[in-house]
Amino acid sequence: MTTVREAAIELFRAHGMTTIFGNPGSTELPMLGGFPDDFRYVLGLQEAVAVGMADGFAQASGNVTHVNLHTAPGLGNGVGAIFNARANKAPLLVTAGQQARSLITMQANLTNRDAVEVPKPFVKWSNEPPRAADVPLALATAIHHATLPPAGPAFVSIPMDDWQADVEPVDFSRQIARRVSGRSRPDEAQLGALAERIRAARNPVFVAGPDIDASGGWDAAVELVERQRLPVWASPATGGGRIGFPEDHPAFQGVLPPAVGPLAETLAGHDLVLVAGSSVFPYYPNIPGDLLAEGTELVAITADPDEAARAPMGDAIVADVALTLRALADRLLDHLEREAPARREPPPAPEPGDPLPPGAVHATLAELFPKDGIIVLESPSSTPALRSQLRLSRPGSYYFSAGGGLGFGLSASLGVQLAQPERQVVCVLGEGSAQYAITAFWTASAYDIPVKFLVLRNNEYSILKWFSTLENVTGAPGLDLPGLDVAATARSYGVSSECVSTRDELHGALAGALAAEGPSLVQVDVSPGMALV
Amino acid sequence: MTTVREAAIELFRAHGMTTIFGNPGSTELPMLGGFPDDFRYVLGLQEAVAVGMADGFAQASGNVTHVNLHTAPGLGNGVGAIFNARANKAPLLVTAGQQARSLITMQANLTNRDAVEVPKPFVKWSNEPPRAADVPLALATAIHHATLPPAGPAFVSIPMDDWQADVEPVDFSRQIARRVSGRSRPDEAQLGALAERIRAARNPVFVAGPDIDASGGWDAAVELVERQRLPVWASPATGGGRIGFPEDHPAFQGVLPPAVGPLAETLAGHDLVLVAGSSVFPYYPNIPGDLLAEGTELVAITADPDEAARAPMGDAIVADVALTLRALADRLLDHLEREAPARREPPPAPEPGDPLPPGAVHATLAELFPKDGIIVLESPSSTPALRSQLRLSRPGSYYFSAGGGLGFGLSASLGVQLAQPERQVVCVLGEGSAQYAITAFWTASAYDIPVKFLVLRNNEYSILKWFSTLENVTGAPGLDLPGLDVAATARSYGVSSECVSTRDELHGALAGALAAEGPSLVQVDVSPGMALV
Repeated sequence: MTTVREAAIELFRAHGMTTIFGNPGSTELPMLGGFPDDFRYVLGLQEAVAVGMADGFAQASGNVTHVNLHTAPGLGNGVGAIFNARANKAPLLVTAGQQARSLITMQANLTNRDAVEVPKPFVKWSNEPPRAADVPLALATAIHHATLPPAGPAFVSIPMDDWQADVEPVDFSRQIARRVSGRSRPDEAQLGALAERIRAARNPVFVAGPDIDASGGWDAAVELVERQRLPVWASPATGGGRIGFPEDHPAFQGVLPPAVGPLAETLAGHDLVLVAGSSVFPYYPNIPGDLLAEGTELVAITADPDEAARAPMGDAIVADVALTLRALADRLLDHLEREAPARREPPPAPEPGDPLPPGAVHATLAELFPKDGIIVLESPSSTPALRSQLRLSRPGSYYFSAGGGLGFGLSASLGVQLAQPERQVVCVLGEGSAQYAITAFWTASAYDIPVKFLVLRNNEYSILKWFSTLENVTGAPGLDLPGLDVAATARSYGVSSECVSTRDELHGALAGALAAEGPSLVQVDVSPGMALV
Repeated sequence: MTTVREAAIELFRAHGMTTIFGNPGSTELPMLGGFPDDFRYVLGLQEAVAVGMADGFAQASGNVTHVNLHTAPGLGNGVGAIFNARANKAPLLVTAGQQARSLITMQANLTNRDAVEVPKPFVKWSNEPPRAADVPLALATAIHHATLPPAGPAFVSIPMDDWQADVEPVDFSRQIARRVSGRSRPDEAQLGALAERIRAARNPVFVAGPDIDASGGWDAAVELVERQRLPVWASPATGGGRIGFPEDHPAFQGVLPPAVGPLAETLAGHDLVLVAGSSVFPYYPNIPGDLLAEGTELVAITADPDEAARAPMGDAIVADVALTLRALADRLLDHLEREAPARREPPPAPEPGDPLPPGAVHATLAELFPKDGIIVLESPSSTPALRSQLRLSRPGSYYFSAGGGLGFGLSASLGVQLAQPERQVVCVLGEGSAQYAITAFWTASAYDIPVKFLVLRNNEYSILKWFSTLENVTGAPGLDLPGLDVAATARSYGVSSECVSTRDELHGALAGALAAEGPSLVQVDVSPGMALV
């Protein structure tokens, strides 16, 4: 006889899902009991942290990742992070315990009364199996939904008495054996037409989005761009959860501005915009204007039907981004007469200043940053400065909350580091951003996860003050953050921390942190306001 | 011309909603700009904290309370706390910003794409107005839904460009002037029949639930109980968000056990159980048995139709709890021949021990606790010990997460203190529980909210280890919490903190904290495991 629990463990093992992130409660204990030796459990002290860690792990490992939460209130605490995972297209299996079946109808305490509604609309699929014996099939279905493009979170609610139930008469071995894939390339006619359109264009331009990285398309993108002499822009940083093109490449021009008018102006003069692996576009803030300049056409390649359908201009092809770029590169072997694009300026020299401007901090980081290092970024007012100073140029080197939800950075950095133990993760945070998942410092310390944290402190929500100017808002309360000391808080959780002010101090402290074992943190006081370079 | 913002401010003012809790983002700035002088904004650094503070404030003030969150991810972070507010029947207006209307359909960054779905199923009503001019009516509707019994959270999503729009042609002054009430008493025939049933019972018993406190029914409950010589039990602590009866009263017998079998056994021998202001019952954990002993009947008085409908046994009357108890007391003036109930034993003497057992901590707290003090409790493994040692006997003296979601205690204590500035709030926390809303310490410090925090530290999730035994689970990971130091973390946020081990140290530190101005914290190391007395 096989129990539901045994079948589920076998299913997880078959999918390589042996790292489980979670925050447990009474309703999860029957699943966690007798935890297998070849599995690892990573505890987060609040659910937003557990989901954020799983999000980072899923993206950086490329594998569907399991996060286990407590019934209703625990799942509820995770909803914001599930929103982020959806925006990041992170393949997550989210499970939560549920009251015993006999106590659900009377709504005993901790009943997740309409469990399947709680994580909506941010999950791709949401289910509570009608019988215990259906739990393995529900888990398998959720895993397949999570991984099929566009990847994202899927949810199963599991009554706590189901785990010990007998899985017969269901033939669970066939469920476990199934493999489901959804990578596809466009039909030949579409591919041929698009290749012709690129070849015939007078002055085409390439926009590299995050799904190039997620689909493994860097090499194809570089080949296509070099063969066709395309200048390259990164999609706006607001929705750029990952970087899809080497930012030190001669063809790379910079990061597109995130608002309607300025973006169209940046692309004006090009007759064809080829967007790969990005929505069109993750606009923010609201600066109206034409969507594209007169004479500019646009084609987007995306694996996400919703991105394709909802874009307000241009054509779209729904297919795997890497496979499509590869097919285009293979069809466009000819070197054209087009001029090579102008080379981007090197990063501006860091301005001096006391306190340091964020650009000077990121320039210092760039000096010390290991070649195969990974940045996890959540410092809203210095995102452009980091992208300007630190020109990341290897796949899988950058993770950012594509949906804009805070709390992702600190927690995701731990998941990324666990998935990529050979690469150094540096997590760059604002002191306000760090607060949304602050207890992740405990997990870093308790599990000795050697992320290096760089915290920029300016005593305010700088991005909001910048938005206030943009929106003509004055006198809003709650924008100042006096007295936050992330270094002290991280230290209280066991993370070695240092506070610095000058560039020399920063250089020394950062170099020390990078050389040290285990997690450590450097907090640097910076000038307030938005930092563009 | 009046803008939507001006009309909304007038509406909030008319309902006494001049304290706003929140965590702002760009989509909320247009509401917060030009913040009126007679309003107060209380900033939480994560949304679970903002909602938890509002929950405590709403319950302790008795007034509908406004909490303002950021679009999708911010609202998502608050969903667990919204679950708690629903279980606590806290009247909350939850608002969140939304992208500008022109950018919603294309789903620009930070669009709350199906905004009304996000807080479901935990809100009573969820709305995004179809036009800017409807925002004031939507807010008024949500306020009415939040306050009508059973009270709870209601949600409005507001596109950020609506605030500056003109509210004409809607006659918003009529919306603002409306008062809607839902307190009702049962019809006379029902009342008379219930009074007769109580009078005729051989050995009736009274179960006091949290909604006695919420409805202002303490005096009526005491009169009814004294006139009819009823022994009194508190409803199970699991769902007992508030205390409905003086626990030092001679008729008070203790707190009902929270599981089916033991609860029925406790009430066996009574022919009639009169339950006021509680669900029947907030069972947990699952210990099967008869719902009631043979020969026991039950009648529940509740203002919540869902509680009335779903109970698995007994009759129910849906009406205001205080009004119904008052009407019953007025009809049952006769003193009966029933014997007065036996008096409850005094609290057991605190056991000595190193580390201290939680009961000894709560006995020390009881020695020092101010007469009109308020307890906000979130220390799952010592809840029974606190209820045993500290016999709270005044209305509005106890707040607990009725739904079982963690993170409520620390954040709600700040809201309770702000609503009751003349009474001393003591917030009792486990070191694990404190983590779910840890950044509330910053708000306590930044706003100088003089809550006294008492943290019991045992380096584990004791309640889960206790549940493991009950559920025959061994080998579950994630139940140990090595190295947490809430005192250090609170200090990092500016809260004066002390760590103690012995009873004398605890007595001195607690006395000092209670005498000091401003927030302060005492952390005491306690023995692990569940503490029942």
